[in-house]
Amino acid sequence: MEIIKKTQTEREELPEQERVPEQDPVKLYVPHRKQPRTVRDPKAPVGVFDSGVGGLTVAREIMRLLPEERIVYFGDTARLPYGAKSRETVIRYSRQIVRFLRHRGVKAIVIACNTASSFALETIARESDIPVIGVIYAGAVTAVKATQNGRVGVIGTRGTVNSDIYGKVIHGLNPDIRVFGKACPLLVPLVEEGLLHDSVTDEILSRYLQELKGKYVDTLVLGCTHYPLLRSTVARIMGSEVTLVNPAYETALELKQILSMEGLLNPGTVGRTETDVAPAAPHHEFYVSDLADNFRDFASSILPGQVDSTQKIEIEEY
Amino acid sequence: MEIIKKTQTEREELPEQERVPEQDPVKLYVPHRKQPRTVRDPKAPVGVFDSGVGGLTVAREIMRLLPEERIVYFGDTARLPYGAKSRETVIRYSRQIVRFLRHRGVKAIVIACNTASSFALETIARESDIPVIGVIYAGAVTAVKATQNGRVGVIGTRGTVNSDIYGKVIHGLNPDIRVFGKACPLLVPLVEEGLLHDSVTDEILSRYLQELKGKYVDTLVLGCTHYPLLRSTVARIMGSEVTLVNPAYETALELKQILSMEGLLNPGTVGRTETDVAPAAPHHEFYVSDLADNFRDFASSILPGQVDSTQKIEIEEY
Repeated sequence: MEIIKKTQTEREELPEQERVPEQDPVKLYVPHRKQPRTVRDPKAPVGVFDSGVGGLTVAREIMRLLPEERIVYFGDTARLPYGAKSRETVIRYSRQIVRFLRHRGVKAIVIACNTASSFALETIARESDIPVIGVIYAGAVTAVKATQNGRVGVIGTRGTVNSDIYGKVIHGLNPDIRVFGKACPLLVPLVEEGLLHDSVTDEILSRYLQELKGKYVDTLVLGCTHYPLLRSTVARIMGSEVTLVNPAYETALELKQILSMEGLLNPGTVGRTETDVAPAAPHHEFYVSDLADNFRDFASSILPGQVDSTQKIEIEEY
Repeated sequence: MEIIKKTQTEREELPEQERVPEQDPVKLYVPHRKQPRTVRDPKAPVGVFDSGVGGLTVAREIMRLLPEERIVYFGDTARLPYGAKSRETVIRYSRQIVRFLRHRGVKAIVIACNTASSFALETIARESDIPVIGVIYAGAVTAVKATQNGRVGVIGTRGTVNSDIYGKVIHGLNPDIRVFGKACPLLVPLVEEGLLHDSVTDEILSRYLQELKGKYVDTLVLGCTHYPLLRSTVARIMGSEVTLVNPAYETALELKQILSMEGLLNPGTVGRTETDVAPAAPHHEFYVSDLADNFRDFASSILPGQVDSTQKIEIEEY
């Protein structure tokens, strides 16, 4: 990833408290610590966004791990996919979405999209006074911890794999690890067509993964938010000796740690025991930039509850 | 298709010569005859646009049928796919692209995209003083002529099939014909992955087409600009008794007729015989809204010549 750094001149123009210290690429993935926060309400919701439905797998993990947190989800269905768009375009789109989510009063933001995490996280985090995390860093850390033979595979969209974002972050953590990427552009359409357990998906996955098996990776990152839905098939093809890393789960864990550290965990999630009576599920909100019906159908198929309140908004007005 | 009609009040506000007579839906597909033209240069290029690479199959048919015509192609790769976008969004995008193409001095415009033809052709044609044609009307006319048993199948993206645009135009031509649509959302990704002759594509196509075979259609419209690349496989599965209609070819024919009728055919294409020495191929221009490299690779794989001059432009500035 190419990190946008302010030039010395630009930096001089910032007031002292807003100056961002020079950091190495790895540190840039925990940028929420850089600025004082002005919004600190533990009862506020968490904002989650993606180019479409894929980020719902991240929302699902957050719902499982932090069942009392309210989520405001935005899927940019009018402008997907982000994978083929330029860095500048993705940053512009992400800024609009962040303005929308801030407008909804979120206390933290999860960029649940690999492309937007890769292109826009650093910029968005620098401009925000609330915690902002992406889906790449947590997965990369887990992969580095998991590998025994120092050979890690990454599957993702063409955009994610060509950007080599996981390779760069993993090398920032441990330069000795070899990272092998494999673009799998057919997997998202297959998942969105509902062919999760199907001979065609098996065949396509076998072809895609053959190359990585030939590289003897012992750890494989599911580097696209749709792929956790194919986890069991990937596990069968790769074999039990290969550890699968699901960045959606790792990102939910990272969110929990950060909210806890910042005193921003919803009070309902603190100090409950398993014998407590569970309160009513929080009312999540779902927004899209186009055609809410398609989104709702897919969301209802992968989330535990019904998603009946999806609203379309004009994101370009933000 | 829901046709946007001006209300009586709005119509009254227009000066006499700009009033558009009320037309039935079928006539709306030849709207280029409505207005006097101010740009009438036979040597000017023809503008062709699509949401991405699919419209190149239409460009290819135009190159074959009208080898002396220069083409200015625009692929809206930054904002694809159009299939999931609303009517208003697609009209806004199409207007920007038409302004860009007019800026390049085109003498006619081919909307080589089913979604944009469905949503924006009527509006664009009403606003233009040069001929504008879409990909739907010519294919529908051919299907109506071809069917013997009055049962026509249409395959396309989810957007095209859900809009039932081919059904509406075909019914406008002959209300007795039954039209059966089948959305095939995996075909575009399979084509773009290059799996034109592959067991997986065969399997997916067989599943999609099974339903239409069960309806005993004798004519099948390839209602998506990518599908001509799968023509031989579709023909094999449907059997020789089913006529395949390729709207890309029919649209090129319609363009030839209109340019001829309007005296706008490039002089080089008029009066040549097969024994004439062919002149140098015209210099086509290719523009995209994002990531020109991907586009160029795909274009080079389906067009006869190398597409080495693809340029990225900022379409949102138009």
